[in-house]
Amino acid sequence: MIVVTYRIETPGSIEAMAEKIASDQSTGTFVPVPGETPELKARVAARVLDIRPLADAECPSWPEAADDQRPLCRADVDIGFPLEAIGTDLSALMTIAVGGIFSIRGFTGLRIVDLKLPEAFRGAYPGPQFGMPGSRRLTGVEGRPIIGTIVKPALGLRPHETAELVGELISSGVDFIKDDEKLMSPAYSPLKERVAAIMPKILDHEQKTGKKVMYAFGISHTDPDEMMRNHDLVAEAGGNCAVININSIGMGGVAFLRKRSRLVLHAHRNGWDVLTRHPGIGFDFRVWQQFWRLLGVDQFQINGIGVKYWEPDDSFVSSFEAVTTPLFDKSDCALPVAGSGQWGGQAPETYRRTGRTTDLLYLCGGGIVSHPQGPAAGVRAVTQAWEAAVADIPLETYAKDHPELAASLKKFGGSKES
Amino acid sequence: MIVVTYRIETPGSIEAMAEKIASDQSTGTFVPVPGETPELKARVAARVLDIRPLADAECPSWPEAADDQRPLCRADVDIGFPLEAIGTDLSALMTIAVGGIFSIRGFTGLRIVDLKLPEAFRGAYPGPQFGMPGSRRLTGVEGRPIIGTIVKPALGLRPHETAELVGELISSGVDFIKDDEKLMSPAYSPLKERVAAIMPKILDHEQKTGKKVMYAFGISHTDPDEMMRNHDLVAEAGGNCAVININSIGMGGVAFLRKRSRLVLHAHRNGWDVLTRHPGIGFDFRVWQQFWRLLGVDQFQINGIGVKYWEPDDSFVSSFEAVTTPLFDKSDCALPVAGSGQWGGQAPETYRRTGRTTDLLYLCGGGIVSHPQGPAAGVRAVTQAWEAAVADIPLETYAKDHPELAASLKKFGGSKES
Repeated sequence: MIVVTYRIETPGSIEAMAEKIASDQSTGTFVPVPGETPELKARVAARVLDIRPLADAECPSWPEAADDQRPLCRADVDIGFPLEAIGTDLSALMTIAVGGIFSIRGFTGLRIVDLKLPEAFRGAYPGPQFGMPGSRRLTGVEGRPIIGTIVKPALGLRPHETAELVGELISSGVDFIKDDEKLMSPAYSPLKERVAAIMPKILDHEQKTGKKVMYAFGISHTDPDEMMRNHDLVAEAGGNCAVININSIGMGGVAFLRKRSRLVLHAHRNGWDVLTRHPGIGFDFRVWQQFWRLLGVDQFQINGIGVKYWEPDDSFVSSFEAVTTPLFDKSDCALPVAGSGQWGGQAPETYRRTGRTTDLLYLCGGGIVSHPQGPAAGVRAVTQAWEAAVADIPLETYAKDHPELAASLKKFGGSKES
Repeated sequence: MIVVTYRIETPGSIEAMAEKIASDQSTGTFVPVPGETPELKARVAARVLDIRPLADAECPSWPEAADDQRPLCRADVDIGFPLEAIGTDLSALMTIAVGGIFSIRGFTGLRIVDLKLPEAFRGAYPGPQFGMPGSRRLTGVEGRPIIGTIVKPALGLRPHETAELVGELISSGVDFIKDDEKLMSPAYSPLKERVAAIMPKILDHEQKTGKKVMYAFGISHTDPDEMMRNHDLVAEAGGNCAVININSIGMGGVAFLRKRSRLVLHAHRNGWDVLTRHPGIGFDFRVWQQFWRLLGVDQFQINGIGVKYWEPDDSFVSSFEAVTTPLFDKSDCALPVAGSGQWGGQAPETYRRTGRTTDLLYLCGGGIVSHPQGPAAGVRAVTQAWEAAVADIPLETYAKDHPELAASLKKFGGSKES
């Protein structure tokens, strides 16, 4: 049985609305029909398993309730869907247990807060090909976070300009570099030319130092065939990683790519916020991320502590827990990628609040490239910040004999965002 | 230039937040970086073109504003993205102009209300293969709406049970029959067996009467390769239509399918509501539907008048206008599909409010199969309702010498939903 937990909000009856989800999302229509027999219902109908009341809402999440429609009752409702009714196809699961619910009248809020998949889903999808262990193996980084950066400005550089910056970043000692997620293959920077300009620098550095920087190229394309051609360009040039915009290409795009992929798939979730930002509507990340992990993303961007975006720190912390908690076994976990406004200053809190682990990719854009002493100092500052975090030494103390960290603290430490 | 209109809501400065969208979604990051030169900005940076103030919001759409953060200013803001910065890839457009915006801090609401694509998009995508003209040609229906029905119960029937019902529906004279969107290929009704059970009835009826009922089989699958196998099963058995759950399979799934498809693609948008139901958040349908029409869906479900769902009639009317308004020329229009709780009673208002056209697929589930005199009478009742609507005759008057319509009015006419 597939169990979905819905957080419902309604001026009506919680019980009736829970039953309505179960009925609408399986056998029912707006009038009784011949053929909807008790035997059929017993076999495929969804069932309300549990209702756990919550405090009433003060404001309707969807502004559809009249002022006198109070109270707005809330509850967490578990609904079980027989596996036979859905199977293990994720698009069927999305359509049946998720898709239709948001259209149902009578709710003023509806959010999916949990999803428990049965054993039948174990092995039904490829899952991550590389994940955390593969990312560590390919970058050669152990015992500390993989430290990454993003080529900035996000858009507008021509391939030779990007490659020049990448050359500097490579010499900075960084482990991982990525295209901004907004960069795919525009006319001014076709992927083919960007790969041709960048990969020789990566390979040359590897020849000289033995260290292969992981570069994530933006290969997303609406057309999966084109995306595979992009994938092949990267793989054939010796690259080992790709940024994919999972919401934009959709489950079909990701499934198609993963079946054929030789690259580490770095998932950017842009667009996700509209599905989660209102706390009474949409999805919790812990639900939504399960789809993409089963499909097989290796690295999952989940913001970080003190980000420049709307997302609160608590939400990042629970996302981190989500992607690192096995669905079936630990091979289905994704490597968490903390990013946005990161510069090292958030290392202690990130470390403290995520189970004192260094198994993450810590991504600093401006925090590295805008370090006052240049990107190499930026990388050293971030590494120092993590050393301090792991050793439980305050950054200010550690900075006393680590000048790069001291410079970061001075430049970026004024506020979380600055 | 690609022009996107954002309806923004913020306790801060409208001008500053508009500039923030333009900067974040093109060249910017959280600190100035080397390389973000004036020349580069001029070439690829997004620009605020126009700001049209709206009345303040009373309640924040996202509950992120403190009580003293008032007023909550609102405006429609046009932002232009240079075509060179994005190109014509829809996943790039989605990522750059849409994806990231919902993460920006400082908004309490953000909705994309318009999208104007430049000429470069003309011909960049296949668009509908069949659309309205192809749907008319294949069903042989002219001068009135194509009348369709849905096999109910939605889930649980085995192939021979479905086929038995379909046999009845075929003899009812209906033009179009579809699987419920929730039915794809579950263990109890594998698509292959369903096709094998149903198609002979369709073809036999065609042999006998010359009328080929269009049957839309649920072919959606997470894996585009599997979906193509489903497509081929239908096409090789002589079928000509498929239901696809566009949100679940994503743009990649639809693009992959459309390139190879020989079937009419009937788009179900389940999941869409979460993106549009809150008026201050997400998308207007007129924006979102452009993506799927360019990708090439032929028929687009858009609810109807007096539906059982939350969606108000006005929203349906503007969706109808959206899918029937050319983006570049009329071949890129989709056939609007009015459905949900329809039984004929909504024909006059549907006709009156959608430009007095009969170019639509009018989909009645329970409204046909639960007609007190059976589905054939249900189809006749719906046809009669449309005759009355076109002739401007009140349904009650027309029902006097049309007993099937009279029976529908008696059974379903008590309220819009009954």
